[in-house]
Amino acid sequence: VAWLEEELLEQPEALRRFLERRTDDVRGFASSLLEGRDVRYLLIASRGSSSNAARYAQYLLGGANRLPAAFAAPSLYTLYEDSPRLDGALAVGISQSGRSPDVTSVIEEARRQGRPTLAITNNEDSPLGRAAELVLPLEAGEERAVAATKTYLNSLAAVALLSAALADDDERLQQLQRIPERVGHQLERSFEDADRVDRYREVSGATVVARGMCYGTAFEIALKIRELSGLLVEAYSPADLLHGPIAGIAPGWPVLVVAPSGPTLESVREIVSHVRARGARVLAISDDAPLLRQVDTPLPLVHGVPEWLAPLVAVVPGQVTALRLATLRGLDLDRPAGLTKVTLTR
Amino acid sequence: VAWLEEELLEQPEALRRFLERRTDDVRGFASSLLEGRDVRYLLIASRGSSSNAARYAQYLLGGANRLPAAFAAPSLYTLYEDSPRLDGALAVGISQSGRSPDVTSVIEEARRQGRPTLAITNNEDSPLGRAAELVLPLEAGEERAVAATKTYLNSLAAVALLSAALADDDERLQQLQRIPERVGHQLERSFEDADRVDRYREVSGATVVARGMCYGTAFEIALKIRELSGLLVEAYSPADLLHGPIAGIAPGWPVLVVAPSGPTLESVREIVSHVRARGARVLAISDDAPLLRQVDTPLPLVHGVPEWLAPLVAVVPGQVTALRLATLRGLDLDRPAGLTKVTLTR
Repeated sequence: VAWLEEELLEQPEALRRFLERRTDDVRGFASSLLEGRDVRYLLIASRGSSSNAARYAQYLLGGANRLPAAFAAPSLYTLYEDSPRLDGALAVGISQSGRSPDVTSVIEEARRQGRPTLAITNNEDSPLGRAAELVLPLEAGEERAVAATKTYLNSLAAVALLSAALADDDERLQQLQRIPERVGHQLERSFEDADRVDRYREVSGATVVARGMCYGTAFEIALKIRELSGLLVEAYSPADLLHGPIAGIAPGWPVLVVAPSGPTLESVREIVSHVRARGARVLAISDDAPLLRQVDTPLPLVHGVPEWLAPLVAVVPGQVTALRLATLRGLDLDRPAGLTKVTLTR
Repeated sequence: VAWLEEELLEQPEALRRFLERRTDDVRGFASSLLEGRDVRYLLIASRGSSSNAARYAQYLLGGANRLPAAFAAPSLYTLYEDSPRLDGALAVGISQSGRSPDVTSVIEEARRQGRPTLAITNNEDSPLGRAAELVLPLEAGEERAVAATKTYLNSLAAVALLSAALADDDERLQQLQRIPERVGHQLERSFEDADRVDRYREVSGATVVARGMCYGTAFEIALKIRELSGLLVEAYSPADLLHGPIAGIAPGWPVLVVAPSGPTLESVREIVSHVRARGARVLAISDDAPLLRQVDTPLPLVHGVPEWLAPLVAVVPGQVTALRLATLRGLDLDRPAGLTKVTLTR
């Protein structure tokens, strides 16, 4: 069995471990991140899968905590002479390895400027972990496959935990504790449905579409399929797609929508009509029965997951699809051609 | 002649008109945007080409004015219950038409919260123009082709003018005044070189890569080719590409790098080696002679443009390439299939 598949299946356990070990901790330090620190917004530094967890943070903390998020432009910290003044920022670095110099540079600069800094990483004893004032370890255990799975899911859990702890919201903290079990059920369900994507084995790429909480999920699914199969997979919000890029959707092109029930469902339903009108084949990750019936390839979500936690479950059918397509194509699941586990960019 | 081609050629004149009419104005109001308003960061709302001008603003104002930028997630303002608290924000809406409801919603909310708001639009008398406290009209004249050209370039000029005025930097204001002439020379040069891309007429897509000031230029060139030709064109920074998505670069795939001289050139040069190792064909928009000699298809930039203004010139070879490829493919330049000039998204 490939590490990738093992790590995929380990996700419920890794999530449970993270929540058991870190919930009290985060409840303890959450208030210290904001109180007396004049925090107006989050500044997030990340790359790769961690940037998709950052996208979740933008929506979740923007709505539930009413805290806007900015994504750092690392080259302003590493290549250009003057880096931004960070008054008002709570700086958060997200990195599985904690070793990417550009992400660390942003956190170092924020700390130099006296701002509160938090590292979310699977490796406490890393340059990023050492640079930040506070560290939230991901507790995912060693991840050996190049493509991130359990570290990604635990990064989402870290964001969810941080949001609920900052809001001191007991109901949400309880909902979060039930997520490992839902992820377990979703894995079972998605492995049962895996062969539904076999008809797409010869495609050259796909477009993944989602909005709001699951916007980052679309990017993560696109990245996972792309990393494992070398296909040209991209992600868009429905609104961004309509502002021009929809021109690239040709007849037969697969469009995968991520559409959990909630405020963004209608917007995703509309984009399905638009891409269908262009002849696209549509796959849907959803718990909405009418939408699932309407598309070419339904990839059902388990029920009973609150919308704010949907990204932790909705990525699973995408991960399983990525695994399936790469397997059908006879590729090395653990070491995709030309990629390395730790990428050091400045 | 297509409107698109007319409007492309009108760009130097449209830029000159904008600078003549608006320089004093912006110098006058710039300080009022910040003074006494407790501004810590920019919050930018935009879609489509305007989002690529927003990317320029993130780098230019982040470096030259040391002001960080966040991109608004419009669905937080239109679909979700609670929108972010905007203490510390200077909210900027960028929209050619001024009519996209989601962009307007962000500016309305910022104004409700008592924040300073600025609309950058080609249509003062639009919902966006009316929502903001201050309006900076683009003065581009009517744009009839669906794909934005002169309104995009004038949006970049608006960002550049705002940055130089906020810094009260006379030298930069003078450099900006010389840009319309440089754009004119670049248009001449790029039309002379246009047939260099004819060998790419049968491609199904491309990847455009740039970093720093020209990061948004990569997205704008990708969007322009995609809108006009329906090809699958995408954009990445070199660092983001290395963190996984490079897996999608197959042998023969065209990679266009935007690489003006300056702090990001080395980083772009490195990515050229990486994608070449994967068998990509490389095109380069650059004024660096060694890089131009090294690639399959050189698209030279005129000399003498300071790096902070490079995006206003570096997009031109991309626009001309987009026009050329669509012409070779026999497509309607002014009304690409399925697109509309004004896109109303919520």
